[in-house]
Amino acid sequence: MKFKLGDSAFFSKKITDTDIQQFADVSGDHNPLHLDDKFAKQTRFGRRIAHGMLGASLISAVIANELPGSIYLGQTLKFVAPVFPDDTLTAKVTVVSIREDKPIVKLETICTNQHGETIIRGEATILIS
Amino acid sequence: MKFKLGDSAFFSKKITDTDIQQFADVSGDHNPLHLDDKFAKQTRFGRRIAHGMLGASLISAVIANELPGSIYLGQTLKFVAPVFPDDTLTAKVTVVSIREDKPIVKLETICTNQHGETIIRGEATILIS
Repeated sequence: MKFKLGDSAFFSKKITDTDIQQFADVSGDHNPLHLDDKFAKQTRFGRRIAHGMLGASLISAVIANELPGSIYLGQTLKFVAPVFPDDTLTAKVTVVSIREDKPIVKLETICTNQHGETIIRGEATILIS
Repeated sequence: MKFKLGDSAFFSKKITDTDIQQFADVSGDHNPLHLDDKFAKQTRFGRRIAHGMLGASLISAVIANELPGSIYLGQTLKFVAPVFPDDTLTAKVTVVSIREDKPIVKLETICTNQHGETIIRGEATILIS
């Protein structure tokens, strides 16, 4: 990324059951919606879904890949659709503003699944170090 | 949590190096700021820090613990101070609004470290299922 307005980058990852279990362990989030088939079957989704924050963490990954050493100042997240086990998520970030006085960049952040459906929408604020 | 305005709950967790490595693997975020001592030493922090999203994931955990099966609709995050390895983070959520037409709750979400310093500030939107 060259820090020009409109520049973008992406990172894709398949979200496996192993990822979901590992994310549950590291976060302490053992919501049965993510881990319990029987419970999840009775919900509106009909089966287990991944943690919203697991999907969101791919935004952190694409930023780190493109801007190593950058510092995360903020993020807004709207979880608009579920992520199912073995979905492949793509996090795409696009530069929407660059401050003139400080090396602070705002990025539009969108995660989509393998069908092109939007999963997460939001905006990141990053300090380039 | 009884879904009354002002009700709150919290979840605490020590963020270890194992957690940081595991979060890097599951997210794909291998920012050297989190993983490389030599790199991190030269930054404003003077040493490695945890991923912001790792701290934020504790918010997801406290919500899941208190409201099992609830669905995450949104989250805003301001990363206001760093988390160092072996810091103990506490995520506290407080009900700030409840919709009358739908089971949608807004929570103030604050993460603090073992010194009582605020690390992350934000707001969650949750659908109670």
